[in-house]
Amino acid sequence: MIFQASQLQLYVQNVLTQAGLPLADAETVASSLVSANLRGVDSHGVTRLEIYVKRLKAGAINANPNIRIVAESDATLLIDGDNGMGQVVGRKAMEWGIAKAKKNGAVMVGVRHSNHFGTGAFFVQQGIEQNLITWAMSNAPSTMAPWGGVKPYLGTNPYAFGIPAGQYDPIILDMATSVVARGKIISAAKEGKTIPEGWAIDREGRPTTNAQDALDGCVLPFGGPKGYAISLMIDIMSGVLTGAGFGPHINQIYGDFDKSQNVGHFFQLLDVSRLMPVEQFKQRVDQMISEIKNAPKAVGTDEIFLPGEIEMNTMRKRLREGIPLSGEVYREIKQVGDSFGIRIEDYFNN
Amino acid sequence: MIFQASQLQLYVQNVLTQAGLPLADAETVASSLVSANLRGVDSHGVTRLEIYVKRLKAGAINANPNIRIVAESDATLLIDGDNGMGQVVGRKAMEWGIAKAKKNGAVMVGVRHSNHFGTGAFFVQQGIEQNLITWAMSNAPSTMAPWGGVKPYLGTNPYAFGIPAGQYDPIILDMATSVVARGKIISAAKEGKTIPEGWAIDREGRPTTNAQDALDGCVLPFGGPKGYAISLMIDIMSGVLTGAGFGPHINQIYGDFDKSQNVGHFFQLLDVSRLMPVEQFKQRVDQMISEIKNAPKAVGTDEIFLPGEIEMNTMRKRLREGIPLSGEVYREIKQVGDSFGIRIEDYFNN
Repeated sequence: MIFQASQLQLYVQNVLTQAGLPLADAETVASSLVSANLRGVDSHGVTRLEIYVKRLKAGAINANPNIRIVAESDATLLIDGDNGMGQVVGRKAMEWGIAKAKKNGAVMVGVRHSNHFGTGAFFVQQGIEQNLITWAMSNAPSTMAPWGGVKPYLGTNPYAFGIPAGQYDPIILDMATSVVARGKIISAAKEGKTIPEGWAIDREGRPTTNAQDALDGCVLPFGGPKGYAISLMIDIMSGVLTGAGFGPHINQIYGDFDKSQNVGHFFQLLDVSRLMPVEQFKQRVDQMISEIKNAPKAVGTDEIFLPGEIEMNTMRKRLREGIPLSGEVYREIKQVGDSFGIRIEDYFNN
Repeated sequence: MIFQASQLQLYVQNVLTQAGLPLADAETVASSLVSANLRGVDSHGVTRLEIYVKRLKAGAINANPNIRIVAESDATLLIDGDNGMGQVVGRKAMEWGIAKAKKNGAVMVGVRHSNHFGTGAFFVQQGIEQNLITWAMSNAPSTMAPWGGVKPYLGTNPYAFGIPAGQYDPIILDMATSVVARGKIISAAKEGKTIPEGWAIDREGRPTTNAQDALDGCVLPFGGPKGYAISLMIDIMSGVLTGAGFGPHINQIYGDFDKSQNVGHFFQLLDVSRLMPVEQFKQRVDQMISEIKNAPKAVGTDEIFLPGEIEMNTMRKRLREGIPLSGEVYREIKQVGDSFGIRIEDYFNN
């Protein structure tokens, strides 16, 4: 099935208002999901609608949170999300952060009592539009062992940053600190396929290519002990420092429906203009991008990409041609609408 | 040969004063080198004395720089190192940064016109002592291709951070963004050994286990495209944003003796107490460390380590038993002393 982004946006936000979100918040969450689909990051797209609504209905997420600043200095903010939707809490935190970074040059923002915030790129884009270099991180329920361990402790804790550019698209990295998303291993197990070495360990901590053994074991961090260290840093900033949960003390998203998750986030924003005139900075970023794009290529490589470039290309294509959804995802989001008497068929205009 | 840290410190700082550094600056540089040896990071230890002195003698490093603040806001600093020693410039930048972070909660500090700054851990430790969470990054002459390329563009751009703890040692990550230091491949080539797959590519961009082919090609980033992205981010913050060199526009350290290198650094500091009482934070970090240390281990793993823990263990051992130097490094640093009429033998008191 092919959906236009605007159709999908309208459908998802209407479902979310029926699930109790105020319209502006439903718009925010729908934007985050649809923009992930546009960028080709379908694992963080509308396929998340079902679980969000399930948690909202169960009262495990607060549809009308009182998001507030708990502690503040010239260059720091600590925000309590009151168990609101991660996208809503994160966007509010970014708004306050942007104002402070523009006023004082830079800011670091900790967030507690939040939930799954979707993609980090969503927030990074907010900062880039204001010519702020932006980092966005979040912790997540545990799925990765510490390096040398066998039991999940850390989440796949995402790390995202964004750099404004001039003629070129901005540079946007948005990555999990695991080698791959656990979802890819679930798919392989369903299809009875093996997985590449280096993705996961079994329950004894041995490397495995058996997808089912991997699911009984742990996903591995990217880059071995270095990725483990970066994932740990993200959990400390997002969880330990903010008062959110950390390590295994974050509740599950696909379970624990009687509890809030207590996810934490961490943002850093820097006003480019305090160090260099924005136009000069963008020219220098453009020069770097141009040099990298034109660098000699390895055998078998047609094009060298900057972080986020492939996603930008996908976005342009999907804005033109629409977003393809698998039959499974279509049925999922249709059922969620049905439960509120919203007919997804009404949102097609073709 | 075994040296006590204090003997080595005195010898190195005396050599550096003979090479033109003021005493306080010689102490700083010697501390950085000896502390790297103490932590077992011998690649960044006194083996660097020879090249530092060579560059000082050639006038490629400024022994008496006018380090100054070029731009300043409540939460940002831009510092010009006037081509001073990287350790001296970095420590001064950290001093100003620490004062600002304590006053306003957090700070981001860009540095240009600097040189090789030794280990990032050296600066991170400065911040931790003040209960500041600290990040230290630097760019470096190009040795890594962009992902998919074959020609060096990025440096091994180090990334370091430090987190204060309570009963436990602080958590200190200090890593290159390459899979391994180029020095390890040089050693393998000298000894006619092969290198593991995944370390490097040959000049056509093909994976290679031949050390000489690797030296003709490129070191690979850790974690594939993700490590490439992080290395790129470090170069943008340290180089593009500060006005320092970036990519291949940073001059070589072991060459280009008629030019300054124009290395850039980037520091971020955050005052823990603005988000959480320091004691509470340290208790939570201790809880996390304790949980990780006591987590179930993979087969073949005796102990799970936190970032920096192995280095701390080595430091305690070497403070007790002394720092072992290879015959080659001993001859290197002896020759440097000889050239100033300083006899290394005078520094042994055993």
